[in-house]
Amino acid sequence: MRRALRLAQKGKGRTSPNPMVGAVLVRKGQVIGEGFHAKAGEPHAEILALSQAGSQATEATLYVNLEPCSHQGRTPPCAPAVIQAGVRRVVVGMEDPNPLVKGRGLEMLRNAGLDVEVGLLEPDCRRLNESFVKYICTRQPFVTLKIASTLDGKIATAQGESKWITGEKARKLVQRLRNESDGVLVGIGTILKDDPLLTPRLKGGKNPFRIVLDSRLRIPDQARVLEKIPEKTILITSAGAPEQRIEELKKKGIQVLILDTVERKINLRTLLPRLGEMGITSLLVEGGSEVNGSFLREGLMDKILLFFSPKILGGQALEMFGGKGIEKLEDAYQIDQIKVKKVGEDILIEGYPKK
Amino acid sequence: MRRALRLAQKGKGRTSPNPMVGAVLVRKGQVIGEGFHAKAGEPHAEILALSQAGSQATEATLYVNLEPCSHQGRTPPCAPAVIQAGVRRVVVGMEDPNPLVKGRGLEMLRNAGLDVEVGLLEPDCRRLNESFVKYICTRQPFVTLKIASTLDGKIATAQGESKWITGEKARKLVQRLRNESDGVLVGIGTILKDDPLLTPRLKGGKNPFRIVLDSRLRIPDQARVLEKIPEKTILITSAGAPEQRIEELKKKGIQVLILDTVERKINLRTLLPRLGEMGITSLLVEGGSEVNGSFLREGLMDKILLFFSPKILGGQALEMFGGKGIEKLEDAYQIDQIKVKKVGEDILIEGYPKK
Repeated sequence: MRRALRLAQKGKGRTSPNPMVGAVLVRKGQVIGEGFHAKAGEPHAEILALSQAGSQATEATLYVNLEPCSHQGRTPPCAPAVIQAGVRRVVVGMEDPNPLVKGRGLEMLRNAGLDVEVGLLEPDCRRLNESFVKYICTRQPFVTLKIASTLDGKIATAQGESKWITGEKARKLVQRLRNESDGVLVGIGTILKDDPLLTPRLKGGKNPFRIVLDSRLRIPDQARVLEKIPEKTILITSAGAPEQRIEELKKKGIQVLILDTVERKINLRTLLPRLGEMGITSLLVEGGSEVNGSFLREGLMDKILLFFSPKILGGQALEMFGGKGIEKLEDAYQIDQIKVKKVGEDILIEGYPKK
Repeated sequence: MRRALRLAQKGKGRTSPNPMVGAVLVRKGQVIGEGFHAKAGEPHAEILALSQAGSQATEATLYVNLEPCSHQGRTPPCAPAVIQAGVRRVVVGMEDPNPLVKGRGLEMLRNAGLDVEVGLLEPDCRRLNESFVKYICTRQPFVTLKIASTLDGKIATAQGESKWITGEKARKLVQRLRNESDGVLVGIGTILKDDPLLTPRLKGGKNPFRIVLDSRLRIPDQARVLEKIPEKTILITSAGAPEQRIEELKKKGIQVLILDTVERKINLRTLLPRLGEMGITSLLVEGGSEVNGSFLREGLMDKILLFFSPKILGGQALEMFGGKGIEKLEDAYQIDQIKVKKVGEDILIEGYPKK
């Protein structure tokens, strides 16, 4: 199963809206076939492993991190193929939460007389496909907040200087995270201040949608997110935005979504299903302060990645989260499943809000 | 040497103003004697190791984390005793920075024909005795800032609630840190808000001096630091404090130091030498916000211990460091030699300011 998970990861950032899946076929202690799902529309992992094994698949055991599918998608279903190949035993990491599958694949296998075991390394399997699991169940993207901060919790100086808080290795890791996300979201404040390009800048990398919250459509024409790959830029604005400006931007090939607002801010609860409809299964929120605060307070953060740089600003400066803080300690947002690691000179703290 | 360092640590918190020293005598690959300095006034590590080895010490190798002393203190000097015992080789972790020694011990040994090697595991030896090294060279205490914070850099809610940000294990570790420090310092704000006792609450633990910065002497009579063990409480105030109040407090057995001020705050640059004169070699600064900010800005922080609790307040609340932040990122305080570890549910980040 570890091998299946490792294989699955090779599809990272390219399988969306599908999950990452790896499959390993073992017979008499020997790996006789393996495969991973490389890209939506391409063959599933199980099929690749089966075709590699050929006639040897008879009597073999299949390890796969996700339940084999039972439904016809862009490719034929996997469970019947597994049965047909004569596989004897199937070890599955987790049930497929996809309402179209949800145990039906396992049922097919069991009905055909195969030994089926579910739940091996399940926590790892769930984490690997955390975006897929949320998206397939809610049709909303999995939201990761990425924050680069000084040790004293500041994301910029009082003057707004934030380049660069973290070191090169951390910034490279962020490039990779962008590459693995379907969308990257920032507030208009960040565009006006830093004018980021928000592309992964990786060779052969995928370009995520760049999504800008801009309720009054203040974005200037020369913003880099408008100039480069405009078809991958989505501006989220409100009914209050000047109509003429909307038309101008649309003419450039930029998508403009008009959403409702709450206290003059884009209603994030409406936004996420809309992004889901566009096939965005994972969203990397890159601030700034106000945007971070809104996602946190609305309970829309699914994961947090906190990069701490070994620096201290030591007094007033820009907070990680804008707005009003929780008043009572017992009501503080609790972060769970904390993992800590060093990334170059910086420290990365990863966690999930307790729900 | 590792064994010597481990032995030395057994004296932690009790050797002040002396360093922690461990000594191991080895002959033909066998440990024939060892010892550590347990408490100021008691025998030095080398002497204990020698007396354990007895006549076997001839031709042996002595491992000791600090240069054997050459001067008569409360106990006789060690270097002559090492020579007399017939030790052949001495491996020393670091030179003793004490101006009374500083190589003189090594010189004695070399002049007597012993093989002397210096610098084995020197970084570990220096870190072990970091308080001693600073104190003996500057006659000022080594200052450690201990901060308990949420992940977003807050040490209390906007209402001032800070009990408890960190979990039990972290708080126990802080008790141990107090036990190992000669003094614990807080601002009057912390006394008025939390009324802490500031004792280590450890069985058999030493009570550090509790030092309160209180320029206007606002401390109430019922403050717990005044009621319990008053002889270990030092109030630091200014000439502006009411004389009658000073007398009242002194009558209770409390030490009151009157220091000069800078912008109405106690001048920390005057304070540290005064604490040094009182034999305080290590000072644990436990905030709050303003006190932390002052130590940082004055460049008086020697070490920082940052406990991050897996909580987020998510907006305005009490900062780690009060006052004005650095304006340019390139001028930010840089923290060096970062170490990260988990302490229960919390994360401890330890570091030293780049000087």
